[in-house]
Amino acid sequence: MGPGPVNADPRVLRAMSAQLVGQYDPVMTGYMTETMGLLRGVLRTDNEQTLLVDGTSRAGIEAALVSLVEPGDRVLVPVFGRFGHLLVEIAERCGAEVHTIQRPWGEVFEAEEIEAAVERVRPSVVAIVHGDTSTTLAQPLDGLGEICRRHDAILYVDATASLGGNDLATDDLALDVVTAGLQKCLGGPSGSAPVTLSPRAVDRIVARRHTEAGIRDADEQDAAGRRIASNYLDLAQIMDYWGPRRLNHHTEATTMLYGARECARLLVEEGMDAAVERHRLHGAAMAAGVAGLGLEVYGDQRHKMNNVVGVVIPDGVVGDAVRSEMLADYGIEIGTSFGPLHGRVWRIGTMGYNARKDAVLTTLAAFEQVLRRAGVRVPAGGGVDGAQAVYAS
Amino acid sequence: MGPGPVNADPRVLRAMSAQLVGQYDPVMTGYMTETMGLLRGVLRTDNEQTLLVDGTSRAGIEAALVSLVEPGDRVLVPVFGRFGHLLVEIAERCGAEVHTIQRPWGEVFEAEEIEAAVERVRPSVVAIVHGDTSTTLAQPLDGLGEICRRHDAILYVDATASLGGNDLATDDLALDVVTAGLQKCLGGPSGSAPVTLSPRAVDRIVARRHTEAGIRDADEQDAAGRRIASNYLDLAQIMDYWGPRRLNHHTEATTMLYGARECARLLVEEGMDAAVERHRLHGAAMAAGVAGLGLEVYGDQRHKMNNVVGVVIPDGVVGDAVRSEMLADYGIEIGTSFGPLHGRVWRIGTMGYNARKDAVLTTLAAFEQVLRRAGVRVPAGGGVDGAQAVYAS
Repeated sequence: MGPGPVNADPRVLRAMSAQLVGQYDPVMTGYMTETMGLLRGVLRTDNEQTLLVDGTSRAGIEAALVSLVEPGDRVLVPVFGRFGHLLVEIAERCGAEVHTIQRPWGEVFEAEEIEAAVERVRPSVVAIVHGDTSTTLAQPLDGLGEICRRHDAILYVDATASLGGNDLATDDLALDVVTAGLQKCLGGPSGSAPVTLSPRAVDRIVARRHTEAGIRDADEQDAAGRRIASNYLDLAQIMDYWGPRRLNHHTEATTMLYGARECARLLVEEGMDAAVERHRLHGAAMAAGVAGLGLEVYGDQRHKMNNVVGVVIPDGVVGDAVRSEMLADYGIEIGTSFGPLHGRVWRIGTMGYNARKDAVLTTLAAFEQVLRRAGVRVPAGGGVDGAQAVYAS
Repeated sequence: MGPGPVNADPRVLRAMSAQLVGQYDPVMTGYMTETMGLLRGVLRTDNEQTLLVDGTSRAGIEAALVSLVEPGDRVLVPVFGRFGHLLVEIAERCGAEVHTIQRPWGEVFEAEEIEAAVERVRPSVVAIVHGDTSTTLAQPLDGLGEICRRHDAILYVDATASLGGNDLATDDLALDVVTAGLQKCLGGPSGSAPVTLSPRAVDRIVARRHTEAGIRDADEQDAAGRRIASNYLDLAQIMDYWGPRRLNHHTEATTMLYGARECARLLVEEGMDAAVERHRLHGAAMAAGVAGLGLEVYGDQRHKMNNVVGVVIPDGVVGDAVRSEMLADYGIEIGTSFGPLHGRVWRIGTMGYNARKDAVLTTLAAFEQVLRRAGVRVPAGGGVDGAQAVYAS
C-alpha cells in the first residue's frame, strides 16, 4: 500500500506467464497493434503513435526528452516535487538549457504562472509532472496545452503516477507527449512505459532526421548536431518499429508487452471514468480513515492525487519504525518520503489492484494497532469508521 | 527455432508470475543481491558490479557505451556482422570518434589484426560482438583482454547472443565489460540485460564524476563535457542503486528481475560447462541434420556459434515461403537473414529452452517435408539420420 510499485493485478501476472512468440510472428505483431489501440483508450487519444518503450517509466521520460530536445534547446520545467527535478536532470543531460519555476512542496501551479514563464523563457519544450507522488499532489493540466500551442512549444507530461487513477484526457487537454508506467494505477509491474505522441510532436522528432537543406545521412546529421543522442530511446526509430514498416530496432520485451496489454485491457474493460472514480473513492476513504485516526492529511487537498495519501507523522513518532512494524507484522508496506518531507510524512497508496475496499480497511485496521503500540492516542475504530462513512455516502 | 528470441523455459515464465514486492522491501533487495551472485556464476566473474539494466539487450549495450565513452573518445569496433554495425552506431551517438576494421560476413578476426588496429587507432574503448547471429559466427576472444590492457583500452564485449551457450569466462579472458540479454541461451524473454563491469571499467566510469581538479558538481561536469549523457542508462547511478547504498534510481522491473534470476539459476544449477556442452551438442546435431538433408551449412565452421546454424537456401527456393509454411503448418519459426545474406541464408537456432533433442528432431522432420514440397530433392530421413548420428556418437 505504498506509493508504487504496488501489487499487480493477478490477471496481469497470469497474462505475463504466457509462452513467447517470435518477434515478427504475425501473432506478435498483432498483439503490438492491439496494444496500441488499447493504450489509446487508456490515454484517451487518437494519436497513431501510441506505443511502449521497453524500460521502466523513467525510460519513457528519457525517450520523450532525448527525442524532443536538441542540444541548446530551451526547456521549461515547472517543479512542484521530486519528479520535477528528475525532468530537469534528464533534460540537462540531453543538452537543454533548462529553466525552472518552482512551487513549495505541497502546492501546485496556476496556469497563469506557467504561461508567464513560457512567455519569458520561450521554450521549445515544456515538461511537467502530472501527479507527483513525492508530494501527493496533481498539477491541473487545463489550459496548458493551448498555452504551449500558442507559443509553439511542445507540452510533455509525465503521467507515470497519475494515469488510470486521475483524469487525463490527452487529446482534450491538447497534450503533445504523455509517458507513463505500469506500476501505479495500471496494476502491473514496472518495466514497460506507455508513450503517446501527437502529430506535432511526431513532426518535431522526425524533423531531426533532416534539416531544411535535406540532410538525411547520419554523419551530416551529426555535423548539424541534430541526431538523437540515444539509439535505444530514439522515438523516431521506435515509431518505425511499431508502425506498419516494422523496421527492426530492439527485440520487443514480449512478456512486458503481455503485461502492458493486460493492464490496458483491464482499464478499457472497466472504462476510464469508472477507473478514475474507483481511485477517487478509495483514495477518499483512505484519507477519511487517516483523519478518523486523528492524523493530519498532508498537502493542498484541492489538488490531491486520487491514488496516494500523505499522512503527517505525529510528533515523537519514528516513521520508519511504524513502517517496519506494518511490514513485518501485517505484511503491509506504506511509503516513506523524500527531500523536505523525509521523516515528516508517510505515503499510503490506493492504486491499481490495491484500490479496493478490503485493502483500504485492512490497512487502516493494522495502522490503528501499530500507531497505538507506537504511543499515539488513536480513537478505537476511528480509521475504519472514517473510511466506511465514505463508502456509505 | 529462430536465432532468438526463442521459447522461454517454463520455469522462467512461472517465476515471472509471482506477485510483486516493494522496491525496498528487504525481500526485494535480497532478490537483487542473490541475482547478482547468480549472474556472476553465469558470466564467470568475481566482479562486484554484476547487475541488470532494465531494458532489452540493446539497453545493456547502450548503457555500457554511454557510460564508458566520453564525447571525442576514440572507439575501435571490429565488425564482422550486423551487430558490429549497431555498436558503431551507438558509439557514434555517444559522440565517439569511431574507427572500424571489417571482415566479410562469414569470417572472424585474428587477434593480431585487432592488435594492429589498437596500435594504430589507440582507442580508449574496444567494442566487439562475441557471437553475431547475423553471420552465425563467434569471434574468438582469447588474447584480446591482454591486448587492451597493454594499450590502456577498455574491452567491451556484446555477448547477447552467445552467453550461456558458448564459452565466455569474463575474468579468465580479462574482459572489462560484458552485456547480454535473456532471450537467447538464457532461456527467458527479452527485457532485462545482465551487465558485468571489471574494477578498471568501474574506475573509468566513476572517474567521469570528477576531473583531476575534483569537479563533482553536475554543472561543472557538464562544462567539462564529462557528464554521462543518459540518466536511465548511467551505470554509475545504476551501480549505486544495486550496491549497498541502494541510492534510488529507476523503479526496478520486478517481474523481469524474477525472470533474470530464474534464467541464471537454471544455468548455475546445470553448470556453465554443461550448458555450453548442451548447446554444442544440439547445435552440432542440427548442423549435421541440415547437411544430411543435402543442404550447405553457412560460414567458417571453425568459428560457428554453438546455438545457431546458417543454412544456404538452395537455388530456386523462395526462403520466405519455406519459413511461412514451417510456421503456419508446423508452428515452428526459423529465421531469415539480414544485409548481404538476405534471401540467401536461413538461420535455425538451438538455444536456451530450445536446445533439446526433441526440438532438433521435430524441426528437421518438418523441414524435410516443407523442403520436399518446395521442390528440393531431399534424401528421405536424411536430416534426422544426420542429427541422430551426432547424438549416438
